[in-house]
Amino acid sequence: MREKTTIVLFSGDLDKAIAAFIIANGAAAYDHDVTIFFTFWGLNALRKDEAVKTKKGILERAFAWMMPRGPKKLGLSKMNFAGMGPQMIKHVMKKHNALSLPQLIELAQEQGVKLVACTMTMDLLGLQSEELIDGIEYAGVAGYLGDASNAKVNLFI
Amino acid sequence: MREKTTIVLFSGDLDKAIAAFIIANGAAAYDHDVTIFFTFWGLNALRKDEAVKTKKGILERAFAWMMPRGPKKLGLSKMNFAGMGPQMIKHVMKKHNALSLPQLIELAQEQGVKLVACTMTMDLLGLQSEELIDGIEYAGVAGYLGDASNAKVNLFI
Amino acid sequence: MREKTTIVLFSGDLDKAIAAFIIANGAAAYDHDVTIFFTFWGLNALRKDEAVKTKKGILERAFAWMMPRGPKKLGLSKMNFAGMGPQMIKHVMKKHNALSLPQLIELAQEQGVKLVACTMTMDLLGLQSEELIDGIEYAGVAGYLGDASNAKVNLFI
Repeated sequence: MREKTTIVLFSGDLDKAIAAFIIANGAAAYDHDVTIFFTFWGLNALRKDEAVKTKKGILERAFAWMMPRGPKKLGLSKMNFAGMGPQMIKHVMKKHNALSLPQLIELAQEQGVKLVACTMTMDLLGLQSEELIDGIEYAGVAGYLGDASNAKVNLFI
Repeated sequence: MREKTTIVLFSGDLDKAIAAFIIANGAAAYDHDVTIFFTFWGLNALRKDEAVKTKKGILERAFAWMMPRGPKKLGLSKMNFAGMGPQMIKHVMKKHNALSLPQLIELAQEQGVKLVACTMTMDLLGLQSEELIDGIEYAGVAGYLGDASNAKVNLFI
Repeated sequence: MREKTTIVLFSGDLDKAIAAFIIANGAAAYDHDVTIFFTFWGLNALRKDEAVKTKKGILERAFAWMMPRGPKKLGLSKMNFAGMGPQMIKHVMKKHNALSLPQLIELAQEQGVKLVACTMTMDLLGLQSEELIDGIEYAGVAGYLGDASNAKVNLFI
């Protein structure tokens, strides 16, 4: 039986999202079944870059506007320096031929990493599935626990 | 044998505490034995709302005063906006009939989730058991490791 | 067979590093094989206090200068108050005869806790092995996953 690995990505920070995807892609390369469950601010990593027309209430529009739209807009957990930090990190990653977050997400999808959007968070923040990238799944905490109970490595990031 | 789940709640952020209790209550609903071990800032979620008269030194009084007193006072890890963020989150949670953090804590206690206060942190920050809610247990890192070693899902939040 | 515990220390915060080492030392005292994998900002806890002469490019020098050099320089995740928070924490820890972070690191090494520096992060941030304390190992995500797959307690801090 294949080993299983799950990651809850709660954080909306670029550095933490990168760490989550590096671990996920590594585990997938070792033939683990890998699930990343995106909840709370972590969902922002799954948003499409472009604005998507949706019907929303005022609060939901406020959340959508305040939160970073997609992996290219995320800030750092440390040394963000009003956005200079992420540019520095992206610069050194490019220099070292490390994959960018959008590339890491693409690789994860190619490797069959299961990307799951937390439906409860989507409800709360008013995010709709048209606003999220294609090829992902949708589930609540029960879905996460089903995977985590069968996994040996379970991380909350 | 029942499956076991443990969560270390280190963070004192409202959003992370909510995530911890949603996972804990979900796991309890699936008949897991669940332990949440409250350490460092996480202990603030267990403080009573009201001020409790205790004998304390100056530093301990400073900590008690600077740290949020109970689940209603916690801030957000992101977009706190000087307290506006938590109000927005509480508003949307209420609108969607999601349980508030105090309700999530109550539900956890009803479902038999073991809430454990870290005694080392209590010593360091000068928190006394009269300041914490009733019905909880007290242990150190050894107690946590005893539970975690038998659990399949172990998260640090 | 000995139980295994792994911790990814991603955070460069003093309080989180202390929590990681308290859990690691506790697990080692209970005869677990323990690995701490230091990645991203967590690597700062392994830096030597003194400046080490190295050849670096401008960006790498900028990172080295902006990031805290060693366990004594780390800030807090909460209530940092421009460095006053860490002093308060260190003061109460001393008062309660709790081990400081440098002492916790020393104890971990004495107990055989495996301290592993993430080589990918070292590359990205331009940290060189001469800048890190002695007696540690070096590995990438594959090394971490090898340990984590055999461990029951896996935490991301």
